[in-house]
Amino acid sequence: MSHPDRRDRLRTVLRAAGLDALLVTDLLDVRYLTGFTGSNAAAVIGADPAGDLLCTDGRYRLQAAGQSPDLDVVIDRPSGPAAAARVPAGSTLGYDSAGLTVDGLAAVRDATPGRRLLRAPGLVGGLRAVKDAAEVDAVRRACELADTALRGLLDAGGLIPGRTEREVALDLEDRMRRLGAAGPSFETILAAGPNSAVPHHRPTGAELRRGDLVKIDFGATLDGYHSDTTRTFCLGPAAGWQRELHALVDAAASAGRAALLDGAVVTDVDAAARDVVADAGHADEFPHGLGHGVGLAVHEAPWLTRTGLGTVAAGQLVTVEPGVYLEGRGGVRIEDLLHVVAGGPPVPLTTLPRELVEV
Amino acid sequence: MSHPDRRDRLRTVLRAAGLDALLVTDLLDVRYLTGFTGSNAAAVIGADPAGDLLCTDGRYRLQAAGQSPDLDVVIDRPSGPAAAARVPAGSTLGYDSAGLTVDGLAAVRDATPGRRLLRAPGLVGGLRAVKDAAEVDAVRRACELADTALRGLLDAGGLIPGRTEREVALDLEDRMRRLGAAGPSFETILAAGPNSAVPHHRPTGAELRRGDLVKIDFGATLDGYHSDTTRTFCLGPAAGWQRELHALVDAAASAGRAALLDGAVVTDVDAAARDVVADAGHADEFPHGLGHGVGLAVHEAPWLTRTGLGTVAAGQLVTVEPGVYLEGRGGVRIEDLLHVVAGGPPVPLTTLPRELVEV
Repeated sequence: MSHPDRRDRLRTVLRAAGLDALLVTDLLDVRYLTGFTGSNAAAVIGADPAGDLLCTDGRYRLQAAGQSPDLDVVIDRPSGPAAAARVPAGSTLGYDSAGLTVDGLAAVRDATPGRRLLRAPGLVGGLRAVKDAAEVDAVRRACELADTALRGLLDAGGLIPGRTEREVALDLEDRMRRLGAAGPSFETILAAGPNSAVPHHRPTGAELRRGDLVKIDFGATLDGYHSDTTRTFCLGPAAGWQRELHALVDAAASAGRAALLDGAVVTDVDAAARDVVADAGHADEFPHGLGHGVGLAVHEAPWLTRTGLGTVAAGQLVTVEPGVYLEGRGGVRIEDLLHVVAGGPPVPLTTLPRELVEV
Repeated sequence: MSHPDRRDRLRTVLRAAGLDALLVTDLLDVRYLTGFTGSNAAAVIGADPAGDLLCTDGRYRLQAAGQSPDLDVVIDRPSGPAAAARVPAGSTLGYDSAGLTVDGLAAVRDATPGRRLLRAPGLVGGLRAVKDAAEVDAVRRACELADTALRGLLDAGGLIPGRTEREVALDLEDRMRRLGAAGPSFETILAAGPNSAVPHHRPTGAELRRGDLVKIDFGATLDGYHSDTTRTFCLGPAAGWQRELHALVDAAASAGRAALLDGAVVTDVDAAARDVVADAGHADEFPHGLGHGVGLAVHEAPWLTRTGLGTVAAGQLVTVEPGVYLEGRGGVRIEDLLHVVAGGPPVPLTTLPRELVEV
């Protein structure tokens, strides 16, 4: 979908919300609506297209003209207040209260006498949650690239006792870059042995050892879109408890994927996987949500958690990533990124096998 | 300075501001005060140390206990409201209005009936702006690492016609990682030929050509701290206009460094460099501020701009980075990171020569 088409979709939302215009301050929202990728920007999208504009600073004059040739570009700063000040007096202007800071709103208020400001959180985020075909393709390519990198690491014998967590993580990230990724989608989580019981462990100088569970949570950035995969390996033959733990998480992941249907309530999807873990007596050892959307941000709506709001919709790209972490011993997480489709089970974009691999 | 010592310094600020406690929601502020590096956290720092606590979610239970053993750790979410709710009724609680979102404040309000909430932007940022000896050392090591990587690239003949901007940027980033960096401090700006006139150009598949100006703005992350250096090279013998442009920017940078003194007004430091550029008739072609602080964030207070507030202080680490950009032809930026000291000129932490190098 072109950027003008996306802005037209947003106009429908604005009119329904009674807004004359929306001040867009989140940089990924700006990118989604305008194509502009600079580090400082705001946009105004009007219920009438004549009100559209992009505001950035002088560093980006050429880039903005090139990336957003169909938009009025205003060079001024700070971008948010400067963009808002262009909205005609008497207008009702929405702002993203979930992203704009308290001081940011104060500055916007100072710049917009005679306009009515209304909280309007997440309007663009709601559009972004449902991906168009080009976005699905971009995320699929990012997933394939990342998974190819991990396969290459395994094929090259890169996951072996004696290497450090940090060495293996850098090796994987290098492989993603060599395959064309702009970089990792987030700092790779590579956690061996007892460290695998730390859900968001940062790689250390600790050496991998035979018998370790090794949890690898990684992703690639490609054309601004992200992937997100987790697999947990065993270095050498798995002990009974490792095999059981992996089987439990695998069953929870299956239940989560099966529940990830167009129209499902997000808390129900989370519960489908969580109940499997709880029935096995490990409720307290699954201390995070089941999954999240992925797109221009690696973590975005929808949120599959115990307290999330709303339902899953066709076109969303969502992770399912249950984990069980036994303090001092080790943990297992299995994560896939799935495309929610109408009238059937979700389609995985991640491509790695899920059974326990003994390296 | 230890984390408890930093919290004690903050207490002095809190008492002066009439606050019983401060809600800390910026993750780098949390890290600075507590040592905790997870991706979700808030802290409360009391005017009385008994009020101190760190709040994060279940993923980080082990990490928080390990990194902040001297603090009460609360596992609850969302972290900001959950932390604020622990502040005793009747307290006056400050919050960082420059970082907390409008919706975030609403959630904190809902969680804190009976407390008085006060805007208190940038209190921790003010402390962070002045570095202690260990922080200066960390940034110095990051600068040396990054500059060593660029020297290695040049020595290996990595900056030559025929390579693409993207290849050279990845090469430089790889070298920083191999030297021990956690990664680049920001996406490397590598801009050749006319692209060098785009201040924040992203590397493309364009090939470097003989006669190009090549602008390289890069940094390394090491132990959580950052570096930031820019140099502009010429591929082959420089044309007259390239040599003049480089000399102009070099003169502006010298003037900026000479003005970067303990107690100087930030707008005066910016003006010292800007006037040199303006006197040469290029005022409109220097479209960004002169510099910024560097520490746990690669861009942080103080801000050397035309509209900044406040003065420079000894102990700050500040970039001086004038640039002049001739659309369609090319641009030059020269950036150093400097340690402001009492009673004398600033001490450069970046180590590369500044004269124009013809590669």
